[in-house]
Amino acid sequence: MSALVASGKTKELYTTDDPKVLRVHYTNHTTAGDGERNEMIPDKGAVNNEISSLIFGYLNQKGVATHFVKQLDATDQLNLSVKMIPLEVVVRNLSSGHFQKRYGTEYLQPLSRPVVEYFFKSDELHDPMINDSAAEALNIATEAQLKTMRETALKVNDLMKSLFKSMNIILVDFKIEFGITDDGQVILADEISPDSCRLLDADTKQSLDKDVFRKQTGDMMTGYREILDKLKATLK
Amino acid sequence: MSALVASGKTKELYTTDDPKVLRVHYTNHTTAGDGERNEMIPDKGAVNNEISSLIFGYLNQKGVATHFVKQLDATDQLNLSVKMIPLEVVVRNLSSGHFQKRYGTEYLQPLSRPVVEYFFKSDELHDPMINDSAAEALNIATEAQLKTMRETALKVNDLMKSLFKSMNIILVDFKIEFGITDDGQVILADEISPDSCRLLDADTKQSLDKDVFRKQTGDMMTGYREILDKLKATLK
Ligand SMILES: Nc1ncnc2c1ncn2[C@@H]1O[C@H](COP(=O)(O)OP(=O)(O)OP(=O)(O)O)[C@@H](O)[C@H]1O
Ligand SMILES: Nc1ncnc2c1ncn2[C@@H]1O[C@H](COP(=O)(O)OP(=O)(O)OP(=O)(O)O)[C@@H](O)[C@H]1O
Ligand SMILES: [Mg+2]
Ligand SMILES: [Mg+2]
Repeated sequence: MSALVASGKTKELYTTDDPKVLRVHYTNHTTAGDGERNEMIPDKGAVNNEISSLIFGYLNQKGVATHFVKQLDATDQLNLSVKMIPLEVVVRNLSSGHFQKRYGTEYLQPLSRPVVEYFFKSDELHDPMINDSAAEALNIATEAQLKTMRETALKVNDLMKSLFKSMNIILVDFKIEFGITDDGQVILADEISPDSCRLLDADTKQSLDKDVFRKQTGDMMTGYREILDKLKATLK
Repeated sequence: MSALVASGKTKELYTTDDPKVLRVHYTNHTTAGDGERNEMIPDKGAVNNEISSLIFGYLNQKGVATHFVKQLDATDQLNLSVKMIPLEVVVRNLSSGHFQKRYGTEYLQPLSRPVVEYFFKSDELHDPMINDSAAEALNIATEAQLKTMRETALKVNDLMKSLFKSMNIILVDFKIEFGITDDGQVILADEISPDSCRLLDADTKQSLDKDVFRKQTGDMMTGYREILDKLKATLK
């Protein structure tokens, strides 16, 4: 017996026999431009489910507390059920995307330190940028939770940067989300996949991520499959 | 002998005999909407010069390091010459303006702590919001400078809140700027006036600041003059 408890633009969450655990189903939905474009891309759910499982498994192993329990089948995984903190936490190593536009920097301009940014998850408000003092003032997160998220985000960045480097791939930036367990622990949740990372072939600088869909420059799944194959070869 | 060294939308900076000191001339220019509207409002320069002098003098006395040396005449004051840090530092006690729009809060909604926000001063980029890690990564300010600015901003807020409270005026929010002296000290610079603060009559909640010009709801100088009169009565 399994009931749908929540769904978003790309994933569906179902109950399991264990109230602490959810079954998360990765769909083929692919969105861009604040959800304006929304297409089904065959196999994307399965590939992202596998990639996300491999990366969360790697992070768990390296001592990062995540919601990942195990992969169930092609499109589904078991995750700890948490109360999500409504912030997108973005880590950037090179300038790209909104950052590039906002500050007038060059595409892939090196940053003299990794940048960590928070965005308030709100479709109506278009996910506005928010800083620690505003997130505290609006009771979105506490000072301690923000500190944990920032430190974890930087650790995840270090771990993922070296993982991808060993695959000859550059980690430009990525977005993660956090949730709170029953006993108040802030852990990494949601997903980590080419939907939420910018990843470049280190030689050709070609995008292996959702930018191919955003900019409509080719077959997005080619890059996703390359990421998956390389992760399998590296982590197994 | 006095040469113009710089000018902005509202002030002109001139050399003095002392290379460490500038004469700052407050003009009547009043701007809104990213400089789209720009009008001359009689007497504004003089009133703001006096208000800014009184507030900087008060802050100096309370141990805040500022660029203020002394008021020279109706429209001019002497300030220490500094290298400006290109950040606007905004402190908010109640929700208003861009904050209100960005986060969908109510006008004058109380904030559970004062919010401190940084904006990168750039007309072309429309002063985008920036956080500590991005300001550091783009070499706009160092971690230590950002810490000094935040702490000083909160101290200035406490001092100004109680000063205005004694005048039956509510300090909603304000913008300040900082500069670096020859010997590397970060000090408060630019101006503090009803051009850069939101101030409300505590009883009627009427604006006594530039919002009257922004929203075109009446004679702006009435509020400015009330602020000046009350500051004179309180501080002298
Ligand atoms: N471990 C978890 N426990 C509970 N909820 C989770 C967990 N991991 C992710 N979620 C939430 O599952 C929902 C579905 O994910 P999805 O990525 O499809 O949503 P979304 O596109 O980000 O949109 P939205 O968050 O606005 O619903 C999201 O709200 C996400 O925050
Ligand atoms: N003590 C100081 N030493 C040097 N420069 C200063 C000092 N105080 C203020 N300034 C600078 O003087 C200039 C003129 O001020 P004004 O407020 O008119 O400029 P503005 O409208 O903010 O526009 P902009 O900063 O883009 O020139 C500003 O660049 C401001 O940063
Ligand atoms: Mg999502
Ligand atoms: Mg100015």
